[in-house]
Amino acid sequence: MGISDIMPAGWHGRARAGLLACTVALALPGLSLAQEQGQPDRPAWADNRWGEGDQLGAANHMTAERTRLAAELVTTGKVYSLGIVVGPDTPAFPPRSLALTVLQPGQTDNSGLGDNAFTYNDDIFMGWLGIGPQIDGLGHAGEDHVYYGGRHYHDFAPASGLTELGLDQLPGLVGRGVLLDMTRHFDTPMVEEGVAYTEDDIRAASEAQGVELREGDVVLFHSNWMELLDGQNADPERFGAAEPGLGVSGAEYLAGLGVMAVGADTWGMEVVPAETEGEAFRAHQILQAHHGIYILENMETRELAADGVNEFMFVLGQARLKGAVQMMINPIAIR
Amino acid sequence: MGISDIMPAGWHGRARAGLLACTVALALPGLSLAQEQGQPDRPAWADNRWGEGDQLGAANHMTAERTRLAAELVTTGKVYSLGIVVGPDTPAFPPRSLALTVLQPGQTDNSGLGDNAFTYNDDIFMGWLGIGPQIDGLGHAGEDHVYYGGRHYHDFAPASGLTELGLDQLPGLVGRGVLLDMTRHFDTPMVEEGVAYTEDDIRAASEAQGVELREGDVVLFHSNWMELLDGQNADPERFGAAEPGLGVSGAEYLAGLGVMAVGADTWGMEVVPAETEGEAFRAHQILQAHHGIYILENMETRELAADGVNEFMFVLGQARLKGAVQMMINPIAIR
Amino acid sequence: MGISDIMPAGWHGRARAGLLACTVALALPGLSLAQEQGQPDRPAWADNRWGEGDQLGAANHMTAERTRLAAELVTTGKVYSLGIVVGPDTPAFPPRSLALTVLQPGQTDNSGLGDNAFTYNDDIFMGWLGIGPQIDGLGHAGEDHVYYGGRHYHDFAPASGLTELGLDQLPGLVGRGVLLDMTRHFDTPMVEEGVAYTEDDIRAASEAQGVELREGDVVLFHSNWMELLDGQNADPERFGAAEPGLGVSGAEYLAGLGVMAVGADTWGMEVVPAETEGEAFRAHQILQAHHGIYILENMETRELAADGVNEFMFVLGQARLKGAVQMMINPIAIR
Amino acid sequence: MGISDIMPAGWHGRARAGLLACTVALALPGLSLAQEQGQPDRPAWADNRWGEGDQLGAANHMTAERTRLAAELVTTGKVYSLGIVVGPDTPAFPPRSLALTVLQPGQTDNSGLGDNAFTYNDDIFMGWLGIGPQIDGLGHAGEDHVYYGGRHYHDFAPASGLTELGLDQLPGLVGRGVLLDMTRHFDTPMVEEGVAYTEDDIRAASEAQGVELREGDVVLFHSNWMELLDGQNADPERFGAAEPGLGVSGAEYLAGLGVMAVGADTWGMEVVPAETEGEAFRAHQILQAHHGIYILENMETRELAADGVNEFMFVLGQARLKGAVQMMINPIAIR
Repeated sequence: MGISDIMPAGWHGRARAGLLACTVALALPGLSLAQEQGQPDRPAWADNRWGEGDQLGAANHMTAERTRLAAELVTTGKVYSLGIVVGPDTPAFPPRSLALTVLQPGQTDNSGLGDNAFTYNDDIFMGWLGIGPQIDGLGHAGEDHVYYGGRHYHDFAPASGLTELGLDQLPGLVGRGVLLDMTRHFDTPMVEEGVAYTEDDIRAASEAQGVELREGDVVLFHSNWMELLDGQNADPERFGAAEPGLGVSGAEYLAGLGVMAVGADTWGMEVVPAETEGEAFRAHQILQAHHGIYILENMETRELAADGVNEFMFVLGQARLKGAVQMMINPIAIR
Repeated sequence: MGISDIMPAGWHGRARAGLLACTVALALPGLSLAQEQGQPDRPAWADNRWGEGDQLGAANHMTAERTRLAAELVTTGKVYSLGIVVGPDTPAFPPRSLALTVLQPGQTDNSGLGDNAFTYNDDIFMGWLGIGPQIDGLGHAGEDHVYYGGRHYHDFAPASGLTELGLDQLPGLVGRGVLLDMTRHFDTPMVEEGVAYTEDDIRAASEAQGVELREGDVVLFHSNWMELLDGQNADPERFGAAEPGLGVSGAEYLAGLGVMAVGADTWGMEVVPAETEGEAFRAHQILQAHHGIYILENMETRELAADGVNEFMFVLGQARLKGAVQMMINPIAIR
Repeated sequence: MGISDIMPAGWHGRARAGLLACTVALALPGLSLAQEQGQPDRPAWADNRWGEGDQLGAANHMTAERTRLAAELVTTGKVYSLGIVVGPDTPAFPPRSLALTVLQPGQTDNSGLGDNAFTYNDDIFMGWLGIGPQIDGLGHAGEDHVYYGGRHYHDFAPASGLTELGLDQLPGLVGRGVLLDMTRHFDTPMVEEGVAYTEDDIRAASEAQGVELREGDVVLFHSNWMELLDGQNADPERFGAAEPGLGVSGAEYLAGLGVMAVGADTWGMEVVPAETEGEAFRAHQILQAHHGIYILENMETRELAADGVNEFMFVLGQARLKGAVQMMINPIAIR
Repeated sequence: MGISDIMPAGWHGRARAGLLACTVALALPGLSLAQEQGQPDRPAWADNRWGEGDQLGAANHMTAERTRLAAELVTTGKVYSLGIVVGPDTPAFPPRSLALTVLQPGQTDNSGLGDNAFTYNDDIFMGWLGIGPQIDGLGHAGEDHVYYGGRHYHDFAPASGLTELGLDQLPGLVGRGVLLDMTRHFDTPMVEEGVAYTEDDIRAASEAQGVELREGDVVLFHSNWMELLDGQNADPERFGAAEPGLGVSGAEYLAGLGVMAVGADTWGMEVVPAETEGEAFRAHQILQAHHGIYILENMETRELAADGVNEFMFVLGQARLKGAVQMMINPIAIR
């Protein structure tokens, strides 16, 4: 690890008169990070099927053939918008927050631009990208600072944006979507917090609901948790305090199947509190760091569940912001 | 127009000890906006086919039948990511800018959370949403402060976010995509700035390229303008100084056909400079304010054009940020 | 008014490879703002004692002699910090909000920079500058879009920052500070909302409290309003809903005296609701637009009042952010 | 170190209807940070003269007597504004950047608020606080994640803002200012980069310039480095690439004297490159972490030097933003 990991490439200042960017190399000869211990240990899981340097992980499962088959799932043409509306009031993992400001640049007290009086609204966003409906890129979840493909934090995650595994690398996710309705599996109006979806649960639910899980799938779990956000008995406190979700055996099972993404109608996709006391977000590590699988959170699955849809075409095109870790999204399901 | 248009609902402060939100009504009795002239004139174009209060405009064209037919356009399964990568260096309409910051909250000098050492990257975005690949929601372009459906600025566009026409209202856009390759039409490697696409151009191009334009379509124009951003003869100055694009007769023609959205591989979709000296962004007004048609900018159309694709399934799921005017996007084309 | 008022100088994008700033002139020939009516009327008050083009207003009263005399007011050496602590919970004029984020760039999982293990915290601010203790620069308050010196909004206030009257122009404010304790004047523990300080009140209070008001003074009013923020009977709702403060005759009187700045221990300095139904923030207009006088809000005056201090040395050095309208401040009083 | 260090107190979401803040405790029983090694070693320097828990460090030197004496230094009444103007073009330590946006909330196409047509400009700041003229609070510079008073990073520096050592704690800095003109000492128009100010240099300069350094002083060094920002031979690249400044023996000497703050007319106050190859910002550690001394950067010292001023009254009132590490400032010098 060299100094450039902590000290980005230069000083960014633009000269005043000429609007000329000047980037100044900071002169720090002979400098290295303190107490550098050489390469950190590379965990066994760092090697994966797509080889050294892979940026896409399970998105490599996207093939023309699978996309074609996904499109064949469209029978009625009904469209489902999976991204909930997100705003300053959306519960967010602390200390994440957001603010939006709308303005009309240059248009106060005039009729706008040109003889045709062109007026317009613009907007500014200030906040964290991991709020509301979101995709966790492969640079999000790691294990002791080691991420997908064995990348150590210092290899790719400077403050100026991810240099690898950023969501700019991902073209989108298109494939077969599968909904597992866990309220049916557990025979309850809403699955309760702390209920883990194990391998056995997933096997049983998919069998009972007549839907086979396959390599390349986008698997969504419906627990009806969104009722806590806006249902009759809304309880945002309870919504954010814990959640039902994927357990460790379930995560290993889905990873073994080679799914492309796993999503849920909860803020964190996996079960909280964890099955094992003292652990936190273990399924994130299994899916993301170990297997390069994308995670989708705060997905609106109620209408799919109400319609009894278990299989659909799934299309996600997240904004390709350079170096971004997470992104607010709105995946589209079509049956 | 009442005082509440300029003065949002209250003071937002949370009491320190109790984490209790307090919203305080500002006591301003008997106050109104200065020189209020009653309702501004409602232009004739304010009435449209979807009636008073409609929030969706041409997105009303989305039907299950059209979606089903769009899915039938998928033959090879090839996926095209239409959103270019966007970052601080992406040319943007002034004074728009953006910055991304990646951080690891709470994880400096420890191994993260829990016995499983959960570590993670997060990110913060500061900037304007109308940068790079973007959708203009129906609250973006107006005529003398009047917007789609005859809404005046003061009816829906406070600084705290659009109360109508926000992109949170739009579930997404799914339908038949059509690419018109204007380099073929004009027989040139790259269409030059100031070249307007007229009704005749569009009719001729669609006929020559064997693709009929229909109600509900998403029409994309390919000019090869992206070569100025990252091609061999990249010239970002030229990229942003002007552009080829939709002209006034072309806009009226597309509106008459009832298309759902119009996009292009340029920063502003329509021709700049305008056909008529003294006008600016007239096609924006025709499409958005008069007809409720969505606009897509900075679309990556090169691969579609290279593959000779003129018809495809189009899927856009923009993040549903409450009150947002524009949004960075990455629509997906599938053939 | 030319097009450049609505359309800043160019496109700001930096070429990717070369880190070279490119500013691209947008080619919009023959374009002007719609319905331009020539110069708006110049109100009579636009002419002032410091002449055309003056940027400083009442800060012109700062002279070496006055500063020297102010320093002579220091007798005990006691220092008063007049800026209250400001954070996300501070009541703010809607829709203003703020967020602060602390991070340790590049230092996760290492011991920092160099053999000496240099580690550091940094911070990011996202929000409005007009929150908590603040100075209103002369570009803040206007009358029908006309500001100090007769400048119309379109002359100096583009979205990219004020080109005139910005707080970068102001070197700071140093002079004689005067505290008028209005709780003593009205013989009440806390002056109530809606109580206006008239010329007569100010004359009476200054006489009773034995302090003469002079040209160049910084006049602060103490109402004990801060008790509503953090006192025993804290009531942030009431704090923000209204306030006691300067009335119209009081503002004219202080302007006639030629004071340099007027401050108070309330969020808006002047009386709310206004004395005349249908008016809002009239004293702001009189002081700022008509007379170039600075306004200081949310000042902590309790300790000065408790000590019976009516005269002191006042020193304000606000951050000189280019183009800023307002700034969070912490003026220092010394007696 | 408990889980609350990485996981702030709860979920912050406000219920939609009621504008009621809900803070939800995340239920993570039995969880602790991974590989927690108990208390890290407390370095010897962590103990200081002001005792356990002190928040102010050398600001404790501020006494009424010293302030009174500082005021006596005012003889001519001339005011010097020490903060340079800061904007997006100001060279900044990477990846720090800033953007300012001015807007007129609610005032587009109307004459503002009330019968008196109250209009106003507001502004939004997005960016890092450590840009341009700045104070480094005592939470800024540490040694292997240990900061002033032996506080470890995890004790006080969550992403939501410093819980100790924040600049909200500091009332301001008032005292005797001393300028050492190092161009005179080195007999050069501008001191060159890499030139360290040693104890001997400081002793010699203060003797030659007839100014004794005392406990509680604010010591400023003038190198004429600002000429590289805006002088005839401006060279922002050179400005930011390195700098002359305080060396290690100089820092120990000043700390031994018990000064309150050390500032300079350079971006980083201390010599870069460092005197010892492999070290970085050692003087920051000595002053801040070991001795609780404040650091002031990018100070405008040219006029003081031109006037031959070596002793003056120094007044700094930085905005007291809750939890802030650094702050843009404009200290005032008065002679």
